[in-house]
Amino acid sequence: MIKYQPADSQVSPRFCGVRTFMRLPHVRTVENIDFAVIGVPFDTGASLKVGARFGPEAIRSSSIILKPYNMFLDVNIFERCSGVDYGDLPVVPGYIEDSNKVIAESLSPLVDKGVIPILLGGDHSITLPELRAVVKANGPVALIHFDSHTDTLDKYFGRSYNHGTPFRRAVEENLLDVNHSIQIGLRGQQYQPGDLQESKRLGFETMTSEDVHAAGPAKVIERIHKRVQDTKAFVTFDIDFVDPAYAPGTGTPEVGGFTSAETLRIVRGLKGLNMVGFDVVEVLPAYDPSQITALLAANIAYEFISLIALSKK
Amino acid sequence: MIKYQPADSQVSPRFCGVRTFMRLPHVRTVENIDFAVIGVPFDTGASLKVGARFGPEAIRSSSIILKPYNMFLDVNIFERCSGVDYGDLPVVPGYIEDSNKVIAESLSPLVDKGVIPILLGGDHSITLPELRAVVKANGPVALIHFDSHTDTLDKYFGRSYNHGTPFRRAVEENLLDVNHSIQIGLRGQQYQPGDLQESKRLGFETMTSEDVHAAGPAKVIERIHKRVQDTKAFVTFDIDFVDPAYAPGTGTPEVGGFTSAETLRIVRGLKGLNMVGFDVVEVLPAYDPSQITALLAANIAYEFISLIALSKK
Amino acid sequence: MIKYQPADSQVSPRFCGVRTFMRLPHVRTVENIDFAVIGVPFDTGASLKVGARFGPEAIRSSSIILKPYNMFLDVNIFERCSGVDYGDLPVVPGYIEDSNKVIAESLSPLVDKGVIPILLGGDHSITLPELRAVVKANGPVALIHFDSHTDTLDKYFGRSYNHGTPFRRAVEENLLDVNHSIQIGLRGQQYQPGDLQESKRLGFETMTSEDVHAAGPAKVIERIHKRVQDTKAFVTFDIDFVDPAYAPGTGTPEVGGFTSAETLRIVRGLKGLNMVGFDVVEVLPAYDPSQITALLAANIAYEFISLIALSKK
Amino acid sequence: MIKYQPADSQVSPRFCGVRTFMRLPHVRTVENIDFAVIGVPFDTGASLKVGARFGPEAIRSSSIILKPYNMFLDVNIFERCSGVDYGDLPVVPGYIEDSNKVIAESLSPLVDKGVIPILLGGDHSITLPELRAVVKANGPVALIHFDSHTDTLDKYFGRSYNHGTPFRRAVEENLLDVNHSIQIGLRGQQYQPGDLQESKRLGFETMTSEDVHAAGPAKVIERIHKRVQDTKAFVTFDIDFVDPAYAPGTGTPEVGGFTSAETLRIVRGLKGLNMVGFDVVEVLPAYDPSQITALLAANIAYEFISLIALSKK
Amino acid sequence: MIKYQPADSQVSPRFCGVRTFMRLPHVRTVENIDFAVIGVPFDTGASLKVGARFGPEAIRSSSIILKPYNMFLDVNIFERCSGVDYGDLPVVPGYIEDSNKVIAESLSPLVDKGVIPILLGGDHSITLPELRAVVKANGPVALIHFDSHTDTLDKYFGRSYNHGTPFRRAVEENLLDVNHSIQIGLRGQQYQPGDLQESKRLGFETMTSEDVHAAGPAKVIERIHKRVQDTKAFVTFDIDFVDPAYAPGTGTPEVGGFTSAETLRIVRGLKGLNMVGFDVVEVLPAYDPSQITALLAANIAYEFISLIALSKK
Amino acid sequence: MIKYQPADSQVSPRFCGVRTFMRLPHVRTVENIDFAVIGVPFDTGASLKVGARFGPEAIRSSSIILKPYNMFLDVNIFERCSGVDYGDLPVVPGYIEDSNKVIAESLSPLVDKGVIPILLGGDHSITLPELRAVVKANGPVALIHFDSHTDTLDKYFGRSYNHGTPFRRAVEENLLDVNHSIQIGLRGQQYQPGDLQESKRLGFETMTSEDVHAAGPAKVIERIHKRVQDTKAFVTFDIDFVDPAYAPGTGTPEVGGFTSAETLRIVRGLKGLNMVGFDVVEVLPAYDPSQITALLAANIAYEFISLIALSKK
Repeated sequence: MIKYQPADSQVSPRFCGVRTFMRLPHVRTVENIDFAVIGVPFDTGASLKVGARFGPEAIRSSSIILKPYNMFLDVNIFERCSGVDYGDLPVVPGYIEDSNKVIAESLSPLVDKGVIPILLGGDHSITLPELRAVVKANGPVALIHFDSHTDTLDKYFGRSYNHGTPFRRAVEENLLDVNHSIQIGLRGQQYQPGDLQESKRLGFETMTSEDVHAAGPAKVIERIHKRVQDTKAFVTFDIDFVDPAYAPGTGTPEVGGFTSAETLRIVRGLKGLNMVGFDVVEVLPAYDPSQITALLAANIAYEFISLIALSKK
Repeated sequence: MIKYQPADSQVSPRFCGVRTFMRLPHVRTVENIDFAVIGVPFDTGASLKVGARFGPEAIRSSSIILKPYNMFLDVNIFERCSGVDYGDLPVVPGYIEDSNKVIAESLSPLVDKGVIPILLGGDHSITLPELRAVVKANGPVALIHFDSHTDTLDKYFGRSYNHGTPFRRAVEENLLDVNHSIQIGLRGQQYQPGDLQESKRLGFETMTSEDVHAAGPAKVIERIHKRVQDTKAFVTFDIDFVDPAYAPGTGTPEVGGFTSAETLRIVRGLKGLNMVGFDVVEVLPAYDPSQITALLAANIAYEFISLIALSKK
Repeated sequence: MIKYQPADSQVSPRFCGVRTFMRLPHVRTVENIDFAVIGVPFDTGASLKVGARFGPEAIRSSSIILKPYNMFLDVNIFERCSGVDYGDLPVVPGYIEDSNKVIAESLSPLVDKGVIPILLGGDHSITLPELRAVVKANGPVALIHFDSHTDTLDKYFGRSYNHGTPFRRAVEENLLDVNHSIQIGLRGQQYQPGDLQESKRLGFETMTSEDVHAAGPAKVIERIHKRVQDTKAFVTFDIDFVDPAYAPGTGTPEVGGFTSAETLRIVRGLKGLNMVGFDVVEVLPAYDPSQITALLAANIAYEFISLIALSKK
Repeated sequence: MIKYQPADSQVSPRFCGVRTFMRLPHVRTVENIDFAVIGVPFDTGASLKVGARFGPEAIRSSSIILKPYNMFLDVNIFERCSGVDYGDLPVVPGYIEDSNKVIAESLSPLVDKGVIPILLGGDHSITLPELRAVVKANGPVALIHFDSHTDTLDKYFGRSYNHGTPFRRAVEENLLDVNHSIQIGLRGQQYQPGDLQESKRLGFETMTSEDVHAAGPAKVIERIHKRVQDTKAFVTFDIDFVDPAYAPGTGTPEVGGFTSAETLRIVRGLKGLNMVGFDVVEVLPAYDPSQITALLAANIAYEFISLIALSKK
Repeated sequence: MIKYQPADSQVSPRFCGVRTFMRLPHVRTVENIDFAVIGVPFDTGASLKVGARFGPEAIRSSSIILKPYNMFLDVNIFERCSGVDYGDLPVVPGYIEDSNKVIAESLSPLVDKGVIPILLGGDHSITLPELRAVVKANGPVALIHFDSHTDTLDKYFGRSYNHGTPFRRAVEENLLDVNHSIQIGLRGQQYQPGDLQESKRLGFETMTSEDVHAAGPAKVIERIHKRVQDTKAFVTFDIDFVDPAYAPGTGTPEVGGFTSAETLRIVRGLKGLNMVGFDVVEVLPAYDPSQITALLAANIAYEFISLIALSKK
Repeated sequence: MIKYQPADSQVSPRFCGVRTFMRLPHVRTVENIDFAVIGVPFDTGASLKVGARFGPEAIRSSSIILKPYNMFLDVNIFERCSGVDYGDLPVVPGYIEDSNKVIAESLSPLVDKGVIPILLGGDHSITLPELRAVVKANGPVALIHFDSHTDTLDKYFGRSYNHGTPFRRAVEENLLDVNHSIQIGLRGQQYQPGDLQESKRLGFETMTSEDVHAAGPAKVIERIHKRVQDTKAFVTFDIDFVDPAYAPGTGTPEVGGFTSAETLRIVRGLKGLNMVGFDVVEVLPAYDPSQITALLAANIAYEFISLIALSKK
């Protein structure tokens, strides 16, 4: 029985009403839903520009344009799925480790029930507690990681927890099936030659931005499928994967990235994988005057939901 | 029994969660509430800059800073009141008269039950249907009208309905107890000398911006009380009453206006009057890059709620 | 005899003077001109973000950079053409059907005289009255329609006229030679699978964004020529055809679009077709802080004029 | 015979058409007019932020809100006056002294005919050539100078001509009846104690911002009248007279300034003086995201026109 | 021997060179200086909007306009003083208590040498470690606290350290001579009636915004002097003391505040007190598109330096 | 002995401290350095939008994200090089020819010592005096010129010196080995067909934007190498080479340009050439609200430094 779906924009225009993701009902339930869109307004882990705590609000605001039928994946989401805007997880601003704990704890009831979460960040430090909750319910997962940075530093400013370190911690905590994990879009400068090697040493497959540009979307998709196979996977999408022209509103933008068309093509190419969770992170509305970053993030979350719908037939 | 009150910001930080006014629960109820905050995202009536349809979203976004205790009126709102964010009234974008109808119809269930509405515009054309609903429930009301414009034109672009005409229509429709009504803050240029006279001819008392500057807040308050007395009153606040320095995000800004401190002092001075409805209109977020206009509008709505609370002892 | 051409920027710098398109003389004439640039500052038909009424002003402002020689089409416009900035057509803000009437009526004197109009929107609802005037003078036309949306809904919010419906109305009113018409760049989500089919059912050829990305500019041009042949054609260009990175200032942006280079290459490829009118619509300056959307729209209009010049040898 | 007046905004909405000041006809005439509004888009004289070359465009854009009747001065402008938007004077960007020459030369035909100019800057260096033209026609004038800076430096960066020096040059060139001249609103820091003394030494009466705050508008007006008496006067208004909250879009903003209401009251107080020319300068649209600076400048120009109208009975 | 002073703007224009405060030399010295301007780019303590870590950069950028002679205090700073831009103190982003420690430790060498610090925030949590260093060198100090908030909460989100609690902690740590301390400008809403009482209970004298508006600058100055007397004092200035119209770029703006003119008059009124340290905090450049907040903060810091200079004769 | 390198961002976060390029020490030395980053804050030569005088500040601000290891060129810069932020060259705002002189004179001590300059503009007129200094030290150089404009006009507004003419002047002054010089990315409109021919007539090889799009980065690189060979070369990069989507903050943006990925690939392809100087010009922060233009310019300068490092093994 499909229960929750968006408000009808032919009846109440899409700019009407309290802003929820895609105009879904805002219900804090784990029953009768296949997926839940959830904000994680936390940005204490950011190393440069800050403000991702307002990311969920901005993504919701831009998501009002989304409609149920995805023509490129040919799926009418709400014929196959039910989902809600679950609201935001609580956080403790200014306190990373405390927040990590409360994020994992408040996400667990959903993933334990088999609800697939689509999480809206927040800075990338939130993916660590997300993975803790997801892995507690599912066992270790393959990571499909879109980003211009590896986020596998050991320490940053001498501290173990922030948005530069989550995936090293995740490996150390045995949260990842790292042999099926892949990092895509890496670029920007490094502190030293070994930085990128570290990701490989930890077990990740890596593709730099130039690798991706050279391969093109179709081959990138192929490589992801080859790597992940039928492992349960978690998709984490740092919006700085995309070029700053397409996503100016982010905290550590890196030039030389991808277009929105390339990005969507790759995300749609995840079709067929066994995905148990998703996030899109590092949207900073204060640097996004035309709201195009938030719009793209909303579309990426929409493709995630479409992928869930496709898997539900 | 007080039922609805804001989320506790000591528990979930104020930037957490789907944005409702003052973090009130979003419930579409008429039971157990004294007041309801309601968006009216309509801007087809605007004659110059447009975008007030996004006013309710912006005011809600800025309202998360509000807390229950008003120290200047010495009232703890939710000790005396219950209220909700009712969401937005439906509108028909592009069609003024149809929208007028649906606004009045969807507001009536609330006011008929005695719930006091605080409406967030939208352009000033929405006040006409609001008055229709309020007057149906309460009989004709005194209008306390803060604005830099009279909005009593007969026609604009040859049409009877838009944001330049609502109060002439209201007089013609016998919605106003015009002998107890007052327009405050009038300025800007006129088409001809008679324009301001028209308001007087229709029966309004008027104060230009220079009258207000000369009198000062205390005398303005006195004059309002003298005019309105114990008549049931509706307060309509066009944000362009305030100077563009304090409220840049509006559609027809007029220089030579008031500070936020003066404004709040006057609004608090409405204390003791018998007010049955309120609106604050003409907030255009696209022209409000630092969100100070929306913040001021949220504070004005907050003072309205405080006035309701004061009357509920 | 060529009469009207731009001011000389070597004499008076291009930032001097009242802003007209390309610094052309602002003359309300139908004599001695081949083309006229005309604003249509109407946005009551918009379903999401509003403000296209300021589109003509912004496009004119950005157009001051344009110079007479188009090196990619190898044509010196004013060696072959005379043209003016005709100013804006009158509209009735807030009233779509009345505006449709006045737009068509005020455009007719120009097109009846054989002047080719380049119209600057305004929201996309204006193309319906434009077509009424153009078709009255020329008979039904092929539509070459660049857009991320089909704009062939039957009703939106239960109403027949707004920016989501003009091309269904145009078909119903027999304004289009639909068998030679084509819609290019379609993307975004649909309400239901059939939405795109509707365009096809009405007779349009359609290319989605992914079709265009797969084909590349050269094949897209070929397909347009094959479809349109020597039919009299009207070119309508919704700026949301372009990706939001290149055109953030629009009302219903859709990610996954095209670059400015691809766009210009396709527009230049219209060379040789028999075009009797052009518009570029949906520019919203309030969301265009760096004015790049208006600049691109000005360049598209410039290419339109170049195409006219090429046809005038 | 009154000939030129604004377009009727009841017929064509005020956002329609090529932007001229107050929607006046754009005619390059010296006949049948009492006043002309003229842009001087020059900013090579600026010492800090630049971009005043776009000031005239922005002021025109904001001026569309102005209507003929000034209720505070009780004058219906076009019952008494005729005026046009004359367009912009030519300038040589990057070359101050050449520009000074061409500005004076192109202004002379107007002032020689007795037309009163309202000039829209441009940086403050333009007032020197304006004065040269005005004085050639009228003889030396009293200067009524609103500004946070004296602009009476001898040299800036070792050069004699830029926006820090015009009034010392004017004194040296005997353009001013300095004994009837006054500088009002002075503040900001000085290089050394003597800077302000220099203005006094040159003969100006001066009022610092604190003098003005202490005196209040009424006394300031009195002091101006006492100083200027019936001397022919030129009014130059640097928008940085106003506080940055009210006029953020300027090149060398100084905190501690005035409100728009105080400003307008003082400007209206010039009523009765014998004014032969006006300018308002230093509007930088790139720093004016909500366009409130340009709006205030447009209103100041409007008050200037009203003063001319009042003198024409 | 006076050693350090600003670059000469007559020689190299003020927009030339690496940005230091007031174009002072950037030297990390404690010798031969009376004061040091020091950034503290920390914002992990912020409860709502974030980004004060970029405050020091923005204030330095705006400070290039400052010149040595303060005409309202009649003091030529560098005739009496020597000072440098010391650069920024190190911080640990994301870790408040660690940062508190490093801030205090790195400030101590300066204050221990008797250098008077002017600290540029950063969020208000930084004042606690500043006070620790200052008090270690000077003994307990009177606090002269300009703010719209008391910042004397016990806990926020259940945590003891953030920008809502520093002054309760300071009292508990015996850093303040609370009987000579005063909080000025308090407004905004409270969680409950007792919140403001808490400040009084802790020993502070308090003035709400309405108290200040009623008293006027002169009486406020008098009251501060009466309270502080000749106690060693630390001045902490939260930019949200000022109204959002004058200081939009801050994290928790509160309407109903003060103008820049009132603010400067009060700050200059501190003349004669025995001040051993200063800060100005909570400037968020991402919300300050016209940079007027940073400019005002730079001017406040300039007045602080002037007060130091005055005390050095 | 390598002496100067950036601050360690693991110790002091990258948003700490006075902003220098890449956090390099700000030292005005010519000793012990291989390269110097130097601002040239001059914009009097600009023909349309102005404000490049703030370009160096913005590029420095964005450069804090850069780290020492360039993974795409596989070089760890400071293992091979020493470099400083030299600060800005002095200029005379408002006076082009005087500025040209002082720029050349103040650059000479560096290039005479063999230090390779990376100059941050400023408008493109600055490249002429840069070349004068560089050629005085090195003899005539090949020009590798990335730009959408040829900048080889004879006169602009009747004047010989501004940002439209530097390379014609450079040819006339025999500063260029024009037979090894190339202009890449040319587009936009021309005044007349011959404009582009002029560059060829002067001896430059030219590639229009469409030539570059057709060839692709690899072939463009090949063509540059073929043209330049082992001649000493100067690289001048006008940021308007890039498309406005990627570089909105520039003075004369031209649509139809390149992505950041294409741009970086071409710049990296300069590897192996004998380059003696570099600049990146025409960054206008006032039109760059998300700072992506400045970020890209900082990255281009970084690639320049990497190329120097590569040549130093």
